[in-house]
Amino acid sequence: MEITNLDYISSNPLLPQVQEAMIDAIRENYGNPSSSHTLGDTANEVLEQARENVAHLINSASSEEVVFTSSGTESINHAIKGAALANAKKGKHIITSNVEHNAVLKSLRRLTKMGFEVTSVSVDEYGVVNPADVAKAMKDDTILVTIMHGNNEVGTIQPVKEIARIAKEKDVLFHCDGVASVGVVPIDVQALGVDLLSFSANQFNGPSGIGGLYIRKGVTLWPLIDGGGQENGRRAGTENLIGIVGMGVAANLVSLGMESRVIHTKKLKDKLIKGLNEKIEDIIINGHPELSLPNLVSVSVKYIEGESIVLMLDEEKISVSTRSACASGALRASHVLLSIGRDYADAQGTLVISFGQETTEAEIDRFLDVLKEVVETLRKMSPLYKKA
Amino acid sequence: MEITNLDYISSNPLLPQVQEAMIDAIRENYGNPSSSHTLGDTANEVLEQARENVAHLINSASSEEVVFTSSGTESINHAIKGAALANAKKGKHIITSNVEHNAVLKSLRRLTKMGFEVTSVSVDEYGVVNPADVAKAMKDDTILVTIMHGNNEVGTIQPVKEIARIAKEKDVLFHCDGVASVGVVPIDVQALGVDLLSFSANQFNGPSGIGGLYIRKGVTLWPLIDGGGQENGRRAGTENLIGIVGMGVAANLVSLGMESRVIHTKKLKDKLIKGLNEKIEDIIINGHPELSLPNLVSVSVKYIEGESIVLMLDEEKISVSTRSACASGALRASHVLLSIGRDYADAQGTLVISFGQETTEAEIDRFLDVLKEVVETLRKMSPLYKKA
Repeated sequence: MEITNLDYISSNPLLPQVQEAMIDAIRENYGNPSSSHTLGDTANEVLEQARENVAHLINSASSEEVVFTSSGTESINHAIKGAALANAKKGKHIITSNVEHNAVLKSLRRLTKMGFEVTSVSVDEYGVVNPADVAKAMKDDTILVTIMHGNNEVGTIQPVKEIARIAKEKDVLFHCDGVASVGVVPIDVQALGVDLLSFSANQFNGPSGIGGLYIRKGVTLWPLIDGGGQENGRRAGTENLIGIVGMGVAANLVSLGMESRVIHTKKLKDKLIKGLNEKIEDIIINGHPELSLPNLVSVSVKYIEGESIVLMLDEEKISVSTRSACASGALRASHVLLSIGRDYADAQGTLVISFGQETTEAEIDRFLDVLKEVVETLRKMSPLYKKA
Repeated sequence: MEITNLDYISSNPLLPQVQEAMIDAIRENYGNPSSSHTLGDTANEVLEQARENVAHLINSASSEEVVFTSSGTESINHAIKGAALANAKKGKHIITSNVEHNAVLKSLRRLTKMGFEVTSVSVDEYGVVNPADVAKAMKDDTILVTIMHGNNEVGTIQPVKEIARIAKEKDVLFHCDGVASVGVVPIDVQALGVDLLSFSANQFNGPSGIGGLYIRKGVTLWPLIDGGGQENGRRAGTENLIGIVGMGVAANLVSLGMESRVIHTKKLKDKLIKGLNEKIEDIIINGHPELSLPNLVSVSVKYIEGESIVLMLDEEKISVSTRSACASGALRASHVLLSIGRDYADAQGTLVISFGQETTEAEIDRFLDVLKEVVETLRKMSPLYKKA
């Protein structure tokens, strides 16, 4: 039996056209885009075509505003550390939220070791940041606001446009972690008004290990990686051209297919939530009921451990996640779930089910049937169940 | 006509076995190595096999000492910035040499903006660092020595073992930029006694955009990229598994074929130098005559511009470089060539001819014939020629 992948948030399958483009790039054996001879010229054309495609996906005013990185995580590190260090003389205060990805949290923790100060605003029961809280957190020495677009654990979409406006009014840079959103829902950097946007190809059927950072014209960061003049001096190192080719093709396909992707995933999400509510008692669906990513459902299954569910589903060849793969291995409860008011036990009993254009209704049906059995089995063994 | 690639230092062609392994990886559509289900397990096995191969290439005591990065440049940034920032409380003084790669120079320049102090030792006419100069440069607050292995512009190999011993005696970390050497000549991190070694797959017929950093057990760096727990918490971000697969296969092949690679490239180098001396007058072969990389020749052609030679050779479908691709576009004369005593004009007239296992003697012969014509043509037009 084929594995049913309901862990898209960890990794999307490569689209066939992306695979073929990458295989062609491998066979072509391109040179180094920085070389000033024919081998270099061809490589450079391929690089810039991919950059155009990616710029189009996020409606960047110019492809020069797009820098290729090695992951969404690198983009986030580059944006946050680069903005902080470039503006340290202006001030050392940064504003973020309680539900950000580990890449944001850990980048900020690193900066606090270097003398920066961080204010983290709380969220409501759905995981939504109140823009007024961001405005209230502003200080004279605030130099950066970093708030995500779609949450990778519960799907909630933040009021990014309002937060960007508040930052702009105060002449403070605004970075948005768009990793879980870009390629999943329409993102328009100009309409949103962000200065910096991080994203990753493996969230929209492109390869892993390749990401992008939108840097609005006029914004100067300290590079994370210093050296040669690649990426207009913003990110040194010989390019991962094969990955970039894959990202470019994936960006183009997802740009063209965005509307049908959103419709398809939203339909699956509605079906999944309905099925969960009908088939399994004592659950909580996490995240905002409307302002939310269409490709992801977070459900807390009371009285049992999410990790046990993942293992039993895996035996039935269904892949889901307890939360983002980046945080797995860690046994702590998700800071996102605790922030929206789940208690420790419920947070531990949480599954993230994520899917995409290739996912079928039949897969959702099968998942619901298997999950129902798994939950019943685990609850029978649980000392917590029915004593609660 | 096929392009004759004599610019291996910018990019090696992918070996057929590397191409096939990467294509298989694309078709397999591996999951995320951090996921705790079957898709993740398979990806993780592939990742660890590649790490074993890379560890073997540099004779690392354990594969756990190898961290995958997105380039040699990232490895260098990680090693230098990570060592400096992790040890800033101990001291802020760093020792380097005058002939390092831009990734080292620019990483150090970044650190000086953060309060670190750098001493750069000079080199002799062949580009060799005197270990005694490193010993003399040591101060009470020295925390890091960073000296390269093989020079990417003139090929000279530094007395790394002696320098490592001096650093160790003073309990100072030693980073070695091995990008131009790993996969080209045998490198043994244990015999050399380095704490940190940077390297890149595209120097040994692996893909671009994937590198490695050897971190000796017990050495703690600040990560360059913070976030998830990938690479044992040393480098966050979802892995470029396709690139890593390619690097692993390339590392394995080059480990097996090292002896014949060295013999083959050394033979081509001897032939090339002999031909240059016989066919073209008024040239200088740069770098050490014996302690040097076998895959690279640097030649200063008096009275003409290297960039003009590159363009005319390109018309004849021969790719060479004026120096490392990372520095191209920059019009300044090479700091390496100035450091070994070339004047500005000779530095501007310098070519780097680099090659590999796939290069044939016939290609070297053709290059020599075409170069002879090109040099004659350019010198006829040069106002400097014969007035000198």
